[in-house]
Parts: sequence; C-alpha cells; structure tokens
Amino acid sequence: MPSTLIDSAIFQGIFSSDEMRQVWSDENRTQKYLDIEAALARVQGRLGLIPQAAADEIVSHCRLEQIDMARLRAQTERIGYPVLGVVSQLNALCRDRLGEYCHWGATTQDITDTATVLQIREGLAIVERELVAISAALAKLAKTHRDTPMIGRSNLQQAVPVTFGYKMAGLLSAIERHRERLAQLKERVLVGEFAGAAGTLASLQTGALQTQAGLCAELGLKQPLIAWHTARDNIAEVGTFLGLVGGTLGKLSMDVKLMMQTEVGEVHEPYAHGRGSSSTMPQKRNPISSCYIHAAISVVRQQAAALLDAMVADHERSTGPWEIEWIVLPEAFCLMAGALKHSRHVLEGLEVDAQAMRRNIDLTHGLVMSEAVMMGLGPYIGRETAHDLVYDLCRQALQQRRPLLELLAAHPEINRHLDHAALARLCDPALYLGQSGAMVDRVLATLD
Amino acid sequence: MPSTLIDSAIFQGIFSSDEMRQVWSDENRTQKYLDIEAALARVQGRLGLIPQAAADEIVSHCRLEQIDMARLRAQTERIGYPVLGVVSQLNALCRDRLGEYCHWGATTQDITDTATVLQIREGLAIVERELVAISAALAKLAKTHRDTPMIGRSNLQQAVPVTFGYKMAGLLSAIERHRERLAQLKERVLVGEFAGAAGTLASLQTGALQTQAGLCAELGLKQPLIAWHTARDNIAEVGTFLGLVGGTLGKLSMDVKLMMQTEVGEVHEPYAHGRGSSSTMPQKRNPISSCYIHAAISVVRQQAAALLDAMVADHERSTGPWEIEWIVLPEAFCLMAGALKHSRHVLEGLEVDAQAMRRNIDLTHGLVMSEAVMMGLGPYIGRETAHDLVYDLCRQALQQRRPLLELLAAHPEINRHLDHAALARLCDPALYLGQSGAMVDRVLATLD
Amino acid sequence: MPSTLIDSAIFQGIFSSDEMRQVWSDENRTQKYLDIEAALARVQGRLGLIPQAAADEIVSHCRLEQIDMARLRAQTERIGYPVLGVVSQLNALCRDRLGEYCHWGATTQDITDTATVLQIREGLAIVERELVAISAALAKLAKTHRDTPMIGRSNLQQAVPVTFGYKMAGLLSAIERHRERLAQLKERVLVGEFAGAAGTLASLQTGALQTQAGLCAELGLKQPLIAWHTARDNIAEVGTFLGLVGGTLGKLSMDVKLMMQTEVGEVHEPYAHGRGSSSTMPQKRNPISSCYIHAAISVVRQQAAALLDAMVADHERSTGPWEIEWIVLPEAFCLMAGALKHSRHVLEGLEVDAQAMRRNIDLTHGLVMSEAVMMGLGPYIGRETAHDLVYDLCRQALQQRRPLLELLAAHPEINRHLDHAALARLCDPALYLGQSGAMVDRVLATLD
Amino acid sequence: MPSTLIDSAIFQGIFSSDEMRQVWSDENRTQKYLDIEAALARVQGRLGLIPQAAADEIVSHCRLEQIDMARLRAQTERIGYPVLGVVSQLNALCRDRLGEYCHWGATTQDITDTATVLQIREGLAIVERELVAISAALAKLAKTHRDTPMIGRSNLQQAVPVTFGYKMAGLLSAIERHRERLAQLKERVLVGEFAGAAGTLASLQTGALQTQAGLCAELGLKQPLIAWHTARDNIAEVGTFLGLVGGTLGKLSMDVKLMMQTEVGEVHEPYAHGRGSSSTMPQKRNPISSCYIHAAISVVRQQAAALLDAMVADHERSTGPWEIEWIVLPEAFCLMAGALKHSRHVLEGLEVDAQAMRRNIDLTHGLVMSEAVMMGLGPYIGRETAHDLVYDLCRQALQQRRPLLELLAAHPEINRHLDHAALARLCDPALYLGQSGAMVDRVLATLD
Repeated sequence: MPSTLIDSAIFQGIFSSDEMRQVWSDENRTQKYLDIEAALARVQGRLGLIPQAAADEIVSHCRLEQIDMARLRAQTERIGYPVLGVVSQLNALCRDRLGEYCHWGATTQDITDTATVLQIREGLAIVERELVAISAALAKLAKTHRDTPMIGRSNLQQAVPVTFGYKMAGLLSAIERHRERLAQLKERVLVGEFAGAAGTLASLQTGALQTQAGLCAELGLKQPLIAWHTARDNIAEVGTFLGLVGGTLGKLSMDVKLMMQTEVGEVHEPYAHGRGSSSTMPQKRNPISSCYIHAAISVVRQQAAALLDAMVADHERSTGPWEIEWIVLPEAFCLMAGALKHSRHVLEGLEVDAQAMRRNIDLTHGLVMSEAVMMGLGPYIGRETAHDLVYDLCRQALQQRRPLLELLAAHPEINRHLDHAALARLCDPALYLGQSGAMVDRVLATLD
Repeated sequence: MPSTLIDSAIFQGIFSSDEMRQVWSDENRTQKYLDIEAALARVQGRLGLIPQAAADEIVSHCRLEQIDMARLRAQTERIGYPVLGVVSQLNALCRDRLGEYCHWGATTQDITDTATVLQIREGLAIVERELVAISAALAKLAKTHRDTPMIGRSNLQQAVPVTFGYKMAGLLSAIERHRERLAQLKERVLVGEFAGAAGTLASLQTGALQTQAGLCAELGLKQPLIAWHTARDNIAEVGTFLGLVGGTLGKLSMDVKLMMQTEVGEVHEPYAHGRGSSSTMPQKRNPISSCYIHAAISVVRQQAAALLDAMVADHERSTGPWEIEWIVLPEAFCLMAGALKHSRHVLEGLEVDAQAMRRNIDLTHGLVMSEAVMMGLGPYIGRETAHDLVYDLCRQALQQRRPLLELLAAHPEINRHLDHAALARLCDPALYLGQSGAMVDRVLATLD
Repeated sequence: MPSTLIDSAIFQGIFSSDEMRQVWSDENRTQKYLDIEAALARVQGRLGLIPQAAADEIVSHCRLEQIDMARLRAQTERIGYPVLGVVSQLNALCRDRLGEYCHWGATTQDITDTATVLQIREGLAIVERELVAISAALAKLAKTHRDTPMIGRSNLQQAVPVTFGYKMAGLLSAIERHRERLAQLKERVLVGEFAGAAGTLASLQTGALQTQAGLCAELGLKQPLIAWHTARDNIAEVGTFLGLVGGTLGKLSMDVKLMMQTEVGEVHEPYAHGRGSSSTMPQKRNPISSCYIHAAISVVRQQAAALLDAMVADHERSTGPWEIEWIVLPEAFCLMAGALKHSRHVLEGLEVDAQAMRRNIDLTHGLVMSEAVMMGLGPYIGRETAHDLVYDLCRQALQQRRPLLELLAAHPEINRHLDHAALARLCDPALYLGQSGAMVDRVLATLD
Repeated sequence: MPSTLIDSAIFQGIFSSDEMRQVWSDENRTQKYLDIEAALARVQGRLGLIPQAAADEIVSHCRLEQIDMARLRAQTERIGYPVLGVVSQLNALCRDRLGEYCHWGATTQDITDTATVLQIREGLAIVERELVAISAALAKLAKTHRDTPMIGRSNLQQAVPVTFGYKMAGLLSAIERHRERLAQLKERVLVGEFAGAAGTLASLQTGALQTQAGLCAELGLKQPLIAWHTARDNIAEVGTFLGLVGGTLGKLSMDVKLMMQTEVGEVHEPYAHGRGSSSTMPQKRNPISSCYIHAAISVVRQQAAALLDAMVADHERSTGPWEIEWIVLPEAFCLMAGALKHSRHVLEGLEVDAQAMRRNIDLTHGLVMSEAVMMGLGPYIGRETAHDLVYDLCRQALQQRRPLLELLAAHPEINRHLDHAALARLCDPALYLGQSGAMVDRVLATLD
C-alpha cells in the first residue's frame, strides 16, 4: 500500500523508473550494508585484525535472502536505525559466535554513509547513461535541423529567425556541461566512510587506517582524508547537481510545451494512441511528458535546498540534519530518473514540423525582420536613427496590418538608400540566420 | 519494492504513520474516484439527467475490489492519468452499456481534485486529532510544571530563570493558533470541483449547477463559486499550513535536543529499551524522535515552497504545475503525520528532571541573576549605570570564578544602597520568575 | 551605493515601490523603536512605575531627527543589534539622567519585535489596498467581458470555449480568498511583544502585565497571552500569506504572458511609448510587467520557506533563526509591493482584443467543439462510443485539414441521429459557453 | 533610504561587506556596461566593422562620471532595462553621431549577461580570498590543537573523545573541496555573451564570431560555443556553489554556537567590549557572528533554489525567469560576503578553552569511555556480548551516579579478563584519541 507517487503501483512508471527505484529499494540498501560488512570482514581477516574463520563465516552470510526483513523493520523502529538490526541478525546467523567479529570498529553511520555512496554510484550511472542518450538525441536533432528556419522568440514575442538545430544545440551545450560536472563531482563523492563513533577510528587500536584503505579499495571507492560524518558538502553537491540537470530539462520541457501549443504547433511529443488524451476533448495532443518533467524538476529544485539544509550538522554526528538526506536523496534520484526518461523519450521521438515553423515566421508579415532592416539601414542613417524609424514603421504596420516591406519601400528616408530588391533581401528570413549553423557546428565539434 | 523512506518496509513506521499512508494510498485514492463517480450518478439520476437505471448500475459497481489495479497502471501509463482508466473499467463493468452514463459531464481534473479534497479532509482530521493530543500533553506539562524553575536561555546563553511550564505554555499557544488556522482554512479548502473541460460545465446542457450543488452535498463539501482548476491557493494553503505546524514542531524538537544534551540533561525523550541506542556507545540517550521531527519538517518546509510554485498554473488547466501537487501533497501529509506522532510521543512521555534544571540555574554561581540585580539597583543608581556596573562585576566574577553575590556585597557603590540580605534576595532565582505562572494561566484559560 | 535591486537607484521603482521601501527603511524602523519607547514611558509614567517627569522627558526626545544615525551604525556593528544604541542615545539626550527610566523592563527583542509588527501593519495595509484595487479591476474586467468568448486552454492546448470574464472571475475569487486570509491573520499577527529577557517580565517587579496591556493599547495592538520571542508562527504566516498572494499573481502573469504571445495576441499589457521595447527588435511588445511579477513572486516563494525555517528557534531567544526574519521580511514585502503594483497596472489598463480571441477559437476549424459534439452525440450512441468516434474524426480532420463539421455530417453513424443543422449548432462556440456567465455572476455577487 | 538589511545604513556592515556591495552596486554594474561597450567598439574598430574614429570616440566616453544616473533611472523605468538607456546616453555624448556605432550588433542581454559575469568574477575573487583565509585559520587551529582532547558528540550526546584539531581539520577538508569546486566552475562560468537578439549574431553580417572572440579576449573571458541567453546552468551553478559553501559555514557556526553554550563553554567568539552583549543581561557572551552566519546561509540556501528556478527559461530569451537572477544573485553574493567575513573573524580570533574541554570529558565519570571498554572487552567475551554488558553497566552508573570504572572492576565477568589497571587504561580518554592526529596530518598534507 504505497502512499507516494514514486512508489505508487499506479504511477511508479510515470514519476520514476524501475531501475532507479531498485537502486534505492530496501533490498538494495540492505544488500549494500551486507556488501560492506563482508568487505570489512575480508579486509580485517586479511590484516589479521579478526580471525580468518570469523571473516569467512561472516562473508558467507552476507546475503540478502538470509535477512528477515520483517524483523529488521521491528528492530529499526525500536532502535531508530537499521544497521544495528542487520548486524545483530548477521551475528546470529554465524556459528560459534564468530559473528561477534562482524562490524568490527565500525559505527552505524559508517555503514549507512558508505551504502549511500554505493547507491549514489549506481544512481549516477543511470543519470550519466541518460545524459549520454539525451546528448546523442540532441546532437542528431541539431545536425538534422542545422538549417531548418524557425522564429526565435524573446519575451514570448517573435524576434528574429533562428534554426531548430541551433535551439537544440543550445540545450546540447548545457547537457555536455552537466556531463563535465558529473565527472568532476564523482571524484569528490565516490569516497568511503569508515571512521567509528566520532570519526577518529579509536575503536580500532591497530590497523585502523589500513582497514579504512582496504575497505575502500574492496568497494572501489576512494579513501577519505578524514571522517565526513558531518561534512556533507559532497552529498549536497549531488543534490545541487541533480537540481542543475533538472533546470536544463525544465527548460527543454518549457520549450516543448510552448512549441506544442495549438497556436504554434511546431513540434509534438512522440505520438502513442491515447497518450496525453483527454477524457472529454478528443482533439487534444497534450505535452504529457513535458508536464511530468516540469513537475519532477520543480520538486527536485526544492530537494536541493533541503540537502543544503542537511549540511548544517552539529558536532561529530548530527541530530536531525542527517535524516533529511535519508528522506530526500532517494526521491531526488527517483524523480530525476523519471524526468530524464521522459526527456529522452521526447527527444528521441520528437515530431518536428518544419512547415509549421516556416508558417509562423511569416505570421507577422515581415515584422520579425525589423532587426535585419535596422542593421541594414544602420550604415546609411545610423543605428539608433534606424532603430527609431523602423520602430515607428513597425507600429504602423501592426496598426494598418500592412507588410513591413511595403512601408519601408514607401519611406523617403529609406528608399533613398535602399531599393525594393535590397529591402526584400533584408526581409528574407532565410538570409538572416546569422551564425546558427556555425554555432551548431561549434557545439557538435566538442562531442567525443 | 518501495524506494522512498515513507513507503519503505523498514522505515515507514518511523517517517510516517500507517493511517496517513492509507489516506494517500492507491487504494484510497481510487476508492475516492469511485465514491465521486457514484455520487455523481446518484445526483444525476435524481435530477433526471441520466436514467435512474444507469445511476443504479453505476453505483453498484463503484467498489474498489471490482477495479483491476494492474490494468489501471497500464492504462495510466498510456493515458497519463488514472481517472479515464477507472471510468473505462467502470463502464465495462456495467450491463447494457449503462456505464456510458458514468462520469457524465465531468473532466479528469474534476474527479482528481475532488478526490484530493476528500483525502485532504481525512489527512487534516488526523492532523487535527494529533494537534489536540499535543495540545493536551502540553497543557498537562504546563500545569504540572507551572512553577518548576529552570534557566531561560537566550542566544544559547543562560539568561534569567523561567519555569518549565512557561516554556510548554509558549508552545501550547502556538499549537492553539494552528488549530484556529486549521478551522479557518477548512472553510476554504473543503470545496468540491465539478466544472468540466475548461471549468464552464458546458458539458452539461441542463442541470449543470444543480449537479455541482448536489454532488458537493453528497460528499459533504462546499460548492465552489467558480471552477478552481487553476486557482490553487487553497491547496497551497494546506501546504503552508503544514509548513507552519512543522515550524512549531521543529522548535519543540530543537528545545528537546538541546535540553537532552549530556551537559544539560533537563529532559529526556521517553525511554524504551534499545531506543535511540548507538551500536558502539552504550551510554548514549539519543533524542531520536527529535531527529525525525527535525528532518521531516525541514523537508515539509521545502514542499510548502513547491506547492506555492504549483500555483503558477497556465490558463484553464495547467501544464506541469498541477502534477507538482500530486507528488508533494501526499508526502507532506505523510511526513507531517510522522512528525506529529513523534511530537506527541515525546510530549506524552517526556521525562522532566527538575533537579537537573535547578542544578543548571546554579551553574554560574549567580551570574544569571545579574538582570535581577541590575533592575534592583536601577532605582538607586539608574538603570544604565546599574547595567554597566553589573556588567563589569559579571566579567570579574567569570574571570575570578567567584559568586556574583560576593562581589556585589563588596562593592561600595552597591552596598551603600542594598545590604547583603537584600542582595541575596535579588540573587534568588525562585524569586525572579516574573509572570511565568501568570502567563501559563493566561494560555491555559483559552483552552476549551 | 545600494547593491540590491530593491534599493538600487536604477531599479527600485521597478522591483518595489517607494511607499513600501519607506515602511522598511532605517528611518521608519528607528522611528518605530522611538514610538515604542515613548509609548512605554507614557504607560509606565501613568502607572507610576517611573517618575512622570522621566516619562515626559523621554517622550520629548523620541523623535528620529534627534538620533545620530552614523553613531547608531557604529553602535550596532559593535553590539550586534540597534536597539541598545537607540536607547543609549535617547538616554544621553535626556536631562538629569531621567533617560535611565527609558526601556524600563524591556529587552532588545521586545522593541524589535513590536517595531516589526508595526511595520507589518503598515506593509499589510499597502498589500490590502492593492488587493482591493486588483479586485476592483478584475471585477470590472469580469463584468465587461462576462460574455466575450475566447478559447479555454488545457495543457496549453485549445480545449473548449470560455469567456474572458470567466477567466478574470476565477482570479477574482482567489484574490477575495486572499482578502479573507488577510483579515484572519491580522487578528493573530497584530500583537505586541513586551516580555523581558526570557519572556517572563521578571524585570518588572510590579505592574508587569499592566504595562504590557497599556503598551499594546497605546500602539493599537493586541496584548499577547504569553511571550512569542521564539514562537514565530505569526511572522512565518505573514510570509506564507505573501507567498500565496504571489502564487495568484504568478498565475495572472503567466496567463498574460501566454495571451500576449505573437501567435496568440489576445491581450496586451497597457502601452506606453518605449515600454517593454527591445534595443534591437522594434516590433516587439514585451510583457514587461508580467516578467517582473514572475520574478518577484518566484523569490517570495523561497522567502516563505526561509521564514518557515526561522521558526525553528532555540529556547527563549533564538540564535540565528531570528535574524533570518530580519533579512527576509522586508524584502518579501518590498518585492510583493512591486508585484502588486505591476499586477494592478496590468489589470487596470489591460488591452483586451476580443476579435483576436474569436479568431483563435476558429483556428482549428471546429476541433475545439469536439466535446460539445461528443456530449451531443452521447444520448444517441453512448458517451464513450461518442468519445472514441469523435476522437478518430478529429485526428482525420487534423490530418486532412478539413472542418470537423464536414466529417461529422458525412459519417453514417452520426448523421443518422443528427442532421447538418443540429451538428452546426453543436459546433457553434457561442452556444457552448456553459456556465461561464453564471459563474461570473456568482463570484461578483460575493463582493461587498 | 535603503529598505533591505544588505543596503541598510545601520546593518550593511553586519550582513554584507563594503567591497562586495561595491561589486553589485549600480555604479559598478553601469561601469561594466561601459567597459563592455568600450571593448566592443575597440574590437569592431580593429576589425574594420565600424570606423576607427567611432571606436575612439565611443571609448573616450565610456566613463561612469559621464552617465546621468537620475536620467538612467527614468529611462530604465520606462524601457524596463537599463542597457538601452546607457547606450542612448553614450550615443548622445559622442560627436558627429559616431555614437551610432556603439552597441553594434549587440542585444540588451549580451551586455547584461557579460556584465554579470564580470561582476561574478569580482565576487568570486572575494569569496576565494576569504576561503583561503578561512582555510589558513582552520589549518592553524588544526595544527595547534592537533592533540587537544575534547569530547566528540553524536546526536548531541557525549560520545568518545576527539581532538579540537581533528574537528577543525574536518571543516578544513570541506573548505578545500569548495576551493576545488570554485576552480572548476570558473572554467565554465567566466564566459562572455555576445550573440544578438536571438543568439545567432545575425545582427552582424560580417565578423560576427571574430567580434565575439575579440570581445571576450578583451575582457579576459572565454568565448562561448553558442549563445547562453537561456542556458543558465552556469549562473545557477554559482548559486549552488554559494549554497554549498554556506552549508559548511552553517556547520561551523552551529558548532561554535553549541560550544559557546553556558553549560559547555569550550570556545568563544573573539571578544570585543560590548560585542554580543545584551541590553539586560550583562553576563552573557552571545555567539553573535554565528547568528549572522546562520541567518545568512539559511537565506542563501533558498536563493540557490531560486536560481535553479531561473533556469526554466523559455525559448531564446526568457520571460521572467531571467529577472529572478537579477534579484537573487547580488544578494546571494552580498550575504555570503557577510557570512565569510564573520566566519573568518571567528576562526582567526577564536578563544579555545582546552581546560573546559577536558572538564567536559570528565563530566560523565567515565561513561564516554564505554566504547573503549567495549572494544577492549570484545576480544575476551565477544563484541556484542561486551556491548550488552557495558550498556547495562552504563545505565547502572547513570542511575547510581557511580564511576563506570568502579562498576567494571566489580563485575565478575569482566574482572576475570581485565584487572583494575587495565580497565583504568581503557577508561583514560587521552589514550583513546584514535587517528585524530593522523587525520589532521592527512588533511594538512594536502594544502599547498
């Protein structure tokens, strides 16, 4: 009986993805605890800190199916944290009290934090794979539509022409920066935690840092310089990274929503029968994936703030702030998995209507070419004078619903410098795409 | 395989409550859809808008066990919303195509919004019950400890004495204001939605507003003046209300955490064997409920902001903002249920150590009485002069670790006005509790 | 040399208003301190707690022009709070050390909190006046355009017709709820603070609660039941209230922005020469006020969360959380003043283009009437069958760019039930406005 | 008459710093516009795109003192943005209409964005300098107190001993990571913007990308691959970076506040006469800088969320989201400058009371050594058995207020394995500091 939309039997496939939900599941979390306890036992056996027989026995029981999850729930509600319950069950599974050597020198948070880092590693791998796919889809759209003219919009007003490929390349450049950020933060975040009650490893009289080094090596993580039980910048950075990626997906979904408006109709989310249909308005083509992206990333943005809040930890092990991470981190990853999945779906199957794009350019009978005209007139009558003159003619064109070209050609201050043919060239959108193509090429050139 | 802590098989009892999770479950949400469809059919049958036989047939199938939830998930993932799937299943269940009269004139959002309001009503009832219980627990503590002296603290510095009852009464007054807020917002929020595709009820050529009125009456909700599909202030207000309640619980948990510090030890969360114990430090008594409260309300605060964000809806039915509510509202209620449960648990079983409170008052050998002394000296030498003089003597007392009384009695500018006995009275904390008791009484007097 | 946009010499008129900035100015805040000290002296003189001569002398100096603001800055930076500096200057201004009776029994936070409440009262008065004006402007638009058809939009897709008056009435109903909220919260918030160091008023051995009562009466505030130094729900509620109002203004600005799109053109912000013009695109008509509204309320939403954070106060006087309010509260009011000013400006001068609205309804050659058709067919062939049939015909109409009416009239399953004339009636938007007008009337009827 | 605390004549030195306020002042912003226009003219003169005489004339007037700020305010309020006003004034200053060549090919946002990047560069330089100073102060404290024992605390309970140097080294490691983040993000953020109305540079028929390259080189910025008018990840990343730094400063301030508690007294903020004093309680030593840090970073955390919100930009130039940055970015930098200044002040002058630290270790008569005892007993009786045994003895020690050592020595299951001397060694905190020193050394070794 799930109560969150992320876990809802009805909605889980919409607001998250099965694979990401698996990463943050009770099962995976608990298995990570066991993986860490097993790695710890192996390392400490090897270092001679615990008997090799104990290490072997412990390792042999570090399998999820041996854990009684119902009992673990009861233990967790009693104690407040699940690690001690897992350790206690593990201990009980071992013969000859060898299980007493399990968890040797560790504290609850060591296991919890390291498990979280292992989950983050899996979560970020999914994020990375989706970013790569989104990048590829954007690159393909940018390449295909490098020269497909559409109107550029500023303040939701038609401005000057761009190309659809240019629009995609702008998004692509942001996605590539996110991949760079991801590579950089993984170096900081994928670090183990093994530090004992107050982080000093006093619990191990010998072999403390060797155990720490060995444990991290076993798990494929970096060894920390010092305990980070209450230095949570890395975890928060993961949150802000997801927030930043979300921002870019939000911009994508905003543009798709706007371009899918009935009055605009330049792109459509991939069609599937019934998809995005309304119970009462059969003609509609709802930007349904974009809605989900918008909602998910709006929530992740606030979760990033919550993770910044969790940094304000007290002393050596914090009293409340840490648990903020417990709540927020899984959800932020799950929601982002949904947003990434929808974004990839939209981009990989996007229906691009080049004809509608062209139709929209022509909607204003030339007004969108006013900048071109102004720049073309500038050398003759000065940029600002041209600006004021064209500004006035545009208002006339709007009021009288006449093509701008007509008014330009009729104006004595203008036709003295430029004849009708020259003015017509200034008014041709296909000749005013600027560096759209070149910029697309610049972005594409940076891809591996 | 839940992935959120709220639904986690391990953590669900810690971060939420079963009853609140039930309110926001797939089952309850779907049942609410059915309740609304049934009510709609009843009303429209009664008004003669649909055949009575159809109404009867529809009503007879509005039971959750008739819905195929797996199919509903598939329908939802295809369409994007579950309501159409429920309607379609309901339709199929009815004999003789009478199910075609189901959902008559309604749009997806009508059913979803009204269901949400019904869930909010159940959720708020739990919140209200918990507030009442917390209020009672606080009132009892305030009454019992009306005159139990403890040190008041300002900027985490010992300031002047207060009573523990006074401290509880301050929280109580805030809880009572929350109850007032709740009563006021229920008047605004418990309103049905039945408005059709764009809110105009054009879908019903006759009996539109009568149907709306009848449906709301059936469900025990108020009839709206106008569609609120994209006027979401009421939903957001529920979120900010939960945030406000959370703020007060956060203050409570902060004080409990601080008073439970090893160095302070004035109160303790109720003891349960193993509760809040550490895997390595058996002496500890962790403020475990306070941790959960702190974390939950920190997240709810951000969820309140997300619900404000959801208000920025476009046109008649919004494109993404609405779905923010879907994600956030259930979680905010679930987390608050956890925070309220822990708060109530803490307050109903709080261990109050009056001796430790008294010990802490005496910790500074009288410095905390400096204000009393200053005010006592004021009439003789002026308030500001007294302030400066006592300020200097306090610094001497701190440096020389001597009781303030000793230094006061030895000072010629002071002992000329007040003898040792008078100064000793000024230094007695039990005589400097001010209006603590009277304020407790004032707050208690407002309770029903 | 201001650094914030709110105080910027260039931007201050855009992002706030002079009158609201005045409310939160150094001058007004300091004057409020003086007003409170004067009121306190008057009350305590009257009660005989301080000599009447002292009261008179103190009152005579409680004028802003007597305060040396440069010295106050130095004092504040040294002490950390300005109140003590003001008291010290006031004391020095008084003859014969009578100033020593100033601030009698008060603590810094008493003066600061009460001053804040007085500023909130002034700030809320401005908010209320603007809400009243916005309400009037919306009512006028709702009345004028009660029957002006425009297309309703759902998921940014054209849905079914509504009227522009209906759209305005929806906003109006939200504004009216905000006015109700405001009236209710003023009862809670406009409460004085006078409680002494730890809130117990121990500083006054006699006349404590009488002084408190008298001071509040002098200032026109309610007397608190108990100190609220660290019960900050009221202050936070002001923040969430501003956030809620902001949400509605955000929805307004979203709709205006969307309706002002070049491709839509249904309304325009009031025209002023050069207003919203671009440096390079003279043809544009930017929704410039809507941009400012959007930005301001997006920030206020986060400020509401910050004020909820400020509630997590420790003990009797908090250590950091309180200062969050200092920073955030003035800015939230200032930004909201800007957002309200722009909203009022937009609504009072909104250019409504009923012709463009009609043109947009006709854009899809009848597809937006599909619900009407479906509901009209329902009685003959069943609602769901009608839905599926019309859904398919709509897709055909879209693909073949043919009017829906044509396809309907040609379909044998349809024309057997409804002839061309009947189908044409179903396709007439002016006949499918539903309860738009009635709902407008319902909302208008609630206005005073 | 400033209304924000940042610009307040009274508070500006507390909540920000003069140098950071100068970075975001009207004057500096406007000067940056002029610097960019000058650089643009120089580059375009050199490239032959505008007459060299025009370039020279324009450059000669790009000085702030030639700009009429009052007129600029009026222009800005009329147009909505200040750049056009500056260009218009600049144009008017130039002889022979040469000013018409100013702003050639640029759009308002090009100048605004590039100015913002230049301001960010100055702002980040201040942040970096403060981080370096904080790092040095932390390193010094870590080195000096490498072996100064204090109690480590977990869940605000005394746990096991650490050293004060260890505590500082943990913070230091976080600060060093922030410096790494800063170096990485500067590579992304310090990029110019010059792209024209919709980002395609269509405004320049020749020399477009050369102008862009030259302009960026002139300003010491990197050339963008493509316009970033609506790809705002870099700006938002600056916000999240400030939020992350704030989190660490928040943790610092939290620890200082807690250690300064009257009952703890282990460190004190640097003393200055009157600093942090109360108007009524002369004995207090308020953690006044920590309060300001706490408040500032709590606000910055929400500002980071607002900047993530600003990423959801529409099309080629956004309609509202961009202005969120205008409001938030200056404030986030200003508040962080205050928080950094206070943090540095606290750390450079921190009073560390090693005696009080030792006294607190001994407060529990040995209970804090329970982990040591448990680990010492583990090899004899098993870790978990030892845990349960010691856990019970600790509760006895607490109830009977007897030293743990006494109970241990009297217990038959224990004294059979370890004699009194061995147990005493287990109970000596100075022998249980674990890797505190080694971890300090590891962190210090990474510093340049």
